[in-house]
This record gives sequence, C-alpha cells and structure tokens, in this order.
Amino acid sequence: MIFDVTVEVRLRPGIADPQGATIERALPALGFDGVQDVKVGKSIRFTIDAESETAAFAEVEDLCHRFLTNPVIEDSVVTIAAGASA
Amino acid sequence: MIFDVTVEVRLRPGIADPQGATIERALPALGFDGVQDVKVGKSIRFTIDAESETAAFAEVEDLCHRFLTNPVIEDSVVTIAAGASA
Repeated sequence: MIFDVTVEVRLRPGIADPQGATIERALPALGFDGVQDVKVGKSIRFTIDAESETAAFAEVEDLCHRFLTNPVIEDSVVTIAAGASA
Repeated sequence: MIFDVTVEVRLRPGIADPQGATIERALPALGFDGVQDVKVGKSIRFTIDAESETAAFAEVEDLCHRFLTNPVIEDSVVTIAAGASA
C-alpha cells in the first residue's frame, strides 16, 4: 500500500531559532502586532510503499532518526494517511 | 484571544524542488526503498492575539501573502487552533 507521509521537523525547546527571531522582529514594522513565539521548521512530504500503516510508521521513524533530523537539536512529528493504493 | 497558528509553506506544483530531489536520490543507498515524491517545505508556528478566529485567520492570510511566502512559487496552508486565553 502507498501512504502519504508528512514529517514536521522542529527545533527542540531551548535551541536558538534565528529565522524565527528575525521574522518576529520584522513584523511590527509591517503592521502585524500581537504575533509571538515564531518558530521556523521544515515540513517534508513524501509517499512510501509499505505493507501496513504500522510498518510505514516504523520505517518513517527510522528514516527521521537516521537522515531527516539531527536528533541532538531537532524533534520530528510524523503524520501518515492512506494514499492512492498501489 | 490568543490563537496557535501553523503555516505550512510548500512549493507550488511544477516548481523545481532540489532539496526534495536530493533526499529522494539519497534514500535507496541508505536502504529506504519505496519512498517517492519527496517535497520539502517550511513550517512556521507562532501565536497571534486577535479578537476572533475569523480575524486571526484574515490577519494570518495577509501575513502569508505579504511576508511569509513568495506567492509566485509558493502556496501556504494555514491551521489555527485556540491557544491559552490572554
């Protein structure tokens, strides 16, 4: 079966986020007040061919830890949905 | 009220995605087969202070078009949830 996967990679709490800080500093000059705690992460979407949703989840978790994230500074959130069948 | 906002910024269909292509090419060598259509985008999280969810959504849409995305090559998906009340 083919599954649609979304992996959101975020910086772990306490890790400096210069991209987010820059956006937050720029917003008042553009007239957007009241925006706070800006954090910028990555969103990675792909499809995976696996036997079951459990197998797909295990493979994606492994992929996140080995390749898509740096586990020292980043967390990942995996979302899996059934896609078009193979 | 304070709302938690997530903006996912994706490249529009047809726009070249070299980051995604590089990930996709690297995966078979690491033992991950069956992964396809890798697309890399940004995920931006923040809180916004607005009178209602509708007002928050309108402000975030405006923010996306003016600042967070390049509408020529990127689409944005906005998700809003009620956060801790002010």
